[in-house]
Amino acid sequence: MIRKFTIGNPIPTDSVVKEIPAAEGSIPYFSINDEGKELSLALEKNDKIFGLGETVRGMNKRGWLYISNNSDDPNHTENKNSLYASQNFFVVFSGDRQFGVYVDTPGKVSFDIGYTKLDKLTVSFEDFDADIYIVDGESVLDIVGQFRQIIGRSYIPPKWAFGFGQSRWSYMTADEVREVADKYQEAGIPLDMIYLDIDYMERYKDFTIDESVFPKFPEFVEEMRKRGIHLVPIIDAGVKIEEGYDVYEEGVEKGYFVKKENGENLVAAVWPGKVHFPDFLNDEARAWFGNKYKVLLDQGIDGFWNDMNEPAIFYTQDHLEEVFDQIEDYKGKNLDVKSFFAFKDLVGSIDNYPEDYRRFYHEYKGRKIRHDKVHNLFGYNMTRAAGEAFERLSPDKRILMFSRSSYIGMHRYGGIWHGDNHSWWSHLLLNIQQMPAVNMCGFLYTGADIGGFGSDTTEDLLLRWTAFGIFTPLFRNHSAMYTRRQELYLYENVPVFRNFVRLRYALIPYLYSEFMKAALNDRMLFKPLCFEYNDDRSACVEDQLLLGESIMLAPVYTQNAEGRYVYLPEDMKLVRFRAFDDYDEEVMSAGDHYVRARLDEILVFVRKGHVLPLAKPEKGMDAVDASDISFICCDAEPESYELYTDDGESRI
Amino acid sequence: MIRKFTIGNPIPTDSVVKEIPAAEGSIPYFSINDEGKELSLALEKNDKIFGLGETVRGMNKRGWLYISNNSDDPNHTENKNSLYASQNFFVVFSGDRQFGVYVDTPGKVSFDIGYTKLDKLTVSFEDFDADIYIVDGESVLDIVGQFRQIIGRSYIPPKWAFGFGQSRWSYMTADEVREVADKYQEAGIPLDMIYLDIDYMERYKDFTIDESVFPKFPEFVEEMRKRGIHLVPIIDAGVKIEEGYDVYEEGVEKGYFVKKENGENLVAAVWPGKVHFPDFLNDEARAWFGNKYKVLLDQGIDGFWNDMNEPAIFYTQDHLEEVFDQIEDYKGKNLDVKSFFAFKDLVGSIDNYPEDYRRFYHEYKGRKIRHDKVHNLFGYNMTRAAGEAFERLSPDKRILMFSRSSYIGMHRYGGIWHGDNHSWWSHLLLNIQQMPAVNMCGFLYTGADIGGFGSDTTEDLLLRWTAFGIFTPLFRNHSAMYTRRQELYLYENVPVFRNFVRLRYALIPYLYSEFMKAALNDRMLFKPLCFEYNDDRSACVEDQLLLGESIMLAPVYTQNAEGRYVYLPEDMKLVRFRAFDDYDEEVMSAGDHYVRARLDEILVFVRKGHVLPLAKPEKGMDAVDASDISFICCDAEPESYELYTDDGESRI
Repeated sequence: MIRKFTIGNPIPTDSVVKEIPAAEGSIPYFSINDEGKELSLALEKNDKIFGLGETVRGMNKRGWLYISNNSDDPNHTENKNSLYASQNFFVVFSGDRQFGVYVDTPGKVSFDIGYTKLDKLTVSFEDFDADIYIVDGESVLDIVGQFRQIIGRSYIPPKWAFGFGQSRWSYMTADEVREVADKYQEAGIPLDMIYLDIDYMERYKDFTIDESVFPKFPEFVEEMRKRGIHLVPIIDAGVKIEEGYDVYEEGVEKGYFVKKENGENLVAAVWPGKVHFPDFLNDEARAWFGNKYKVLLDQGIDGFWNDMNEPAIFYTQDHLEEVFDQIEDYKGKNLDVKSFFAFKDLVGSIDNYPEDYRRFYHEYKGRKIRHDKVHNLFGYNMTRAAGEAFERLSPDKRILMFSRSSYIGMHRYGGIWHGDNHSWWSHLLLNIQQMPAVNMCGFLYTGADIGGFGSDTTEDLLLRWTAFGIFTPLFRNHSAMYTRRQELYLYENVPVFRNFVRLRYALIPYLYSEFMKAALNDRMLFKPLCFEYNDDRSACVEDQLLLGESIMLAPVYTQNAEGRYVYLPEDMKLVRFRAFDDYDEEVMSAGDHYVRARLDEILVFVRKGHVLPLAKPEKGMDAVDASDISFICCDAEPESYELYTDDGESRI
Repeated sequence: MIRKFTIGNPIPTDSVVKEIPAAEGSIPYFSINDEGKELSLALEKNDKIFGLGETVRGMNKRGWLYISNNSDDPNHTENKNSLYASQNFFVVFSGDRQFGVYVDTPGKVSFDIGYTKLDKLTVSFEDFDADIYIVDGESVLDIVGQFRQIIGRSYIPPKWAFGFGQSRWSYMTADEVREVADKYQEAGIPLDMIYLDIDYMERYKDFTIDESVFPKFPEFVEEMRKRGIHLVPIIDAGVKIEEGYDVYEEGVEKGYFVKKENGENLVAAVWPGKVHFPDFLNDEARAWFGNKYKVLLDQGIDGFWNDMNEPAIFYTQDHLEEVFDQIEDYKGKNLDVKSFFAFKDLVGSIDNYPEDYRRFYHEYKGRKIRHDKVHNLFGYNMTRAAGEAFERLSPDKRILMFSRSSYIGMHRYGGIWHGDNHSWWSHLLLNIQQMPAVNMCGFLYTGADIGGFGSDTTEDLLLRWTAFGIFTPLFRNHSAMYTRRQELYLYENVPVFRNFVRLRYALIPYLYSEFMKAALNDRMLFKPLCFEYNDDRSACVEDQLLLGESIMLAPVYTQNAEGRYVYLPEDMKLVRFRAFDDYDEEVMSAGDHYVRARLDEILVFVRKGHVLPLAKPEKGMDAVDASDISFICCDAEPESYELYTDDGESRI
């Protein structure tokens, strides 16, 4: 049962697609403090809080302050309150009670979950306008399922998007891309996608190609397609200000860019230098921008990733001028420590400067609204622009789309990647822990940058991360310019990487089936153990995952480990894969185990009464036809597994 | 057996106090590449590398690049190569071989330990001048013991320094300090020290007191002493440039400050604004600066901490002028992204700017040497200045001293704290993992800032960190200005904190005995399991510690955990402390266990054949007299434990 309570006069977000009349009376569970603009909830000792999507810290969110305020911050350390996403749904549950809460408000909102007071959860609003949905149900999974039903079906990518992809910020030429394809081919490591970061564009202009380094682009796309590789270009939120650039000129002419109070288009700077931001919240502007993807679709492109859409702002012209004026006050003076740090901070805080987000306005649903009031909807609506356009431009065929920034509702139009992480072991664990949380909020096609985006990776980290990454829908190795190169063929253990990636392909029948069942039935793909097992111990396991109906994962995420502890809530069959066709099976009893896991091994636990289908990876992404599949069973018959198949590209 | 091999013409560091003639022939184990200025070692599959002191990542250092280049960097994330210390000793061991390596060179040196190539350890030098000590022995502990013998006995603090201390950057007045003492007293939590961060000084001038906020300082010191509290002030490396300030004027007059190429004193800026740095490497300057501590000793102070001695440099006057000149190039221009980031980086990199460390010179052992060549000796010699002076100024009584920056050799003059960590769970684990590594390098009196220095702490983190901190010699809660306050009495679980801190006091007979045995016999206080147990499993345990001869620790270091896995290499007795006089005992068999640990519990494992003595904490730091001690025994008799006692303050 879902009840909706309305506080104040909320700005609609279009995240909920099912009409639910506002309930009368007070919000259950919570007490309301109008003056303090907050809702609060007394936490019971055993209450656990799961959800909130893409945030820092563990699965149980208790013990920290989370602030929904989409931020371009590449240092996802434990002290951060905001990352790229606002996914304001969570479930409170203990042995005694369970309920879900969705806080639907497009501006900044804080969740103090036992941070200030151990036993108090407080939701604080900048503007006290929100729809609060309270979801009651029989179990956590029931609650999540009910919630997912009202927000609409999750985005479904083409099946080829479940292949392995290689990316790096700094593939500067078509020949560099060809080299990546060649080297993967030589290494015998399957590859379905190569991602193009900002370097393919002409001076970072959306929907352009730098012909000097990527000549004859449609032919290049076709050449790569013949090799089985989809090129997936990035699209950024900012439109370069440049005379003669059609997107810029049209946007100006039609008034589709966000404007300052005085009506002038906001001048900000991102990769291209100075840009205007399209007003994705304006229906017409959104449709216009979405149609621009046709430029690349027409060249054979069938997948994209939307970036910088919090939006990231390197600087605004207005603020940069203020800064240079203020620098004058420091020059030639005898700077004491206070004034020195004020000077440093003045320059250090130019990018993503909070005041800049109050300098511009949207035309949203017929009203002029200052950006900060609807800040968390920006990336969502950029991706919605694309998703809505793809339905028009490619009515039959699915198009790959995922985004950095998000809000619930965007899950209908695209997936997400988990942002600019680092080559840290702690971020491999964060990747593991975020998977169920984003699933709860409707985001199924997701994955983190395997090996880590920022910082220099290490071969053992890359091995362990790939060993987990083969299970995530978005399976992409991505790294930043200036960091150690991260393509798998560059390392010593090429045969191991080959076995790992091939195992991914062997798992496609299972992964695709489970993904589709989750999408079509509003279920989760990745679940914490305690969503299915009610024992006390399962409730505290933060580093194991149930994936689909058949398997449990217990990834190794610490350096120099030769194994790890695993908790089995029931008897399971451990499958120790060295390769898709080289593995041992061992039935293990419920309880605690220390399990060895070498760098060249991937452990999969098949749940009792369940079946894991395996294809032959030589067949690549086409192996999902139900022929020639083998089955690993744990107290179950092969035929008990329901394999989902479709053509992998028609819209559903 | 220790052999010394000399490469090039090394600058002496005074870290080794035993005369060892240089050996002939080539360095065992390593191959040498003169041109590449590097030594390399083929790693065997099972080789583990422990040591390198205060660095990031786990106990086994394999898989990362560590650079000894003392750095003031408060973000100890996994990707950092350098922290505050250079402790260039490590041990390589597997089932088949073991040896220790000490790389004695005062400049920058890199340790690539299976980072570039999984099976290769490379030591790279900026200047190819070093003494390389190769230590062979029967066991890792034997090797560490031999090494510790040649570097001289570790610093021994007064016994009161094993009490609990409270610190915070921002105790602005004597009354604030009194309030801290009062509140701890009211809460019934023992407290032996309150630390004074930079705010006690008059405009951050070393050896001054701001009389306006700390009036009648000697009386205040006495007042606090009567309450059982030692005030422990901070001393910074930079001396404020201010007419009339005696330390500045004397230093200038005598030429004791570091100088630029042209002979002028370097003008840098730290907390006081512009400063000169004393040339601690110059014997006369060092003696002069050391004598200045007398100013505070004479006011009743008997403990200090030396900070900012990498040295941290906010800016140098010369570089700041360069920066302001260069800013002109950006002003009013249409900054593209490249130039914008260049501008941001220009300002962002002002502090601890690498070039600044090549702008000044030392007079060291009769030679003028550019700073970067001896960079890693700076903090060491600041603390040596204090340590040598204390021997003159306080010949009978030990003085508390610990430092942020260090190099091996400094361990004879003071302890260290583990630098400006954060309120991160990962830094609690880092604290655990660094303890044995710094012990290997001679640093016994150490501890991290409990609860975390930077970022906002949480109550559960503070509970768990305190539960570990009660075992570390330096047991100090410290936090930064602007972060959430961290004094224990401010939280909900005061009774639990009280029990924890009292347990620390009950453990003093054991902790002090074990510390003194380690110091007097060149042993380690904290050991990884594998230093005593030879089984395969012990070799991979990175989150448990042996502490002294009798106990093993398995701290909880993850949020919302209700327990943790523990590996017992042999039968042990688990003592589950809720308080020093409220605990359960349970003998557990060798092997793997999942052990519950509530937030109000501290687990101690007493090793088989060993004894843990416990005092009554009501008696505070005086409880170590051997009367009224109880014993928790695991297959052993109380009298088998050798209690070390002394008066706790006489020099030994």
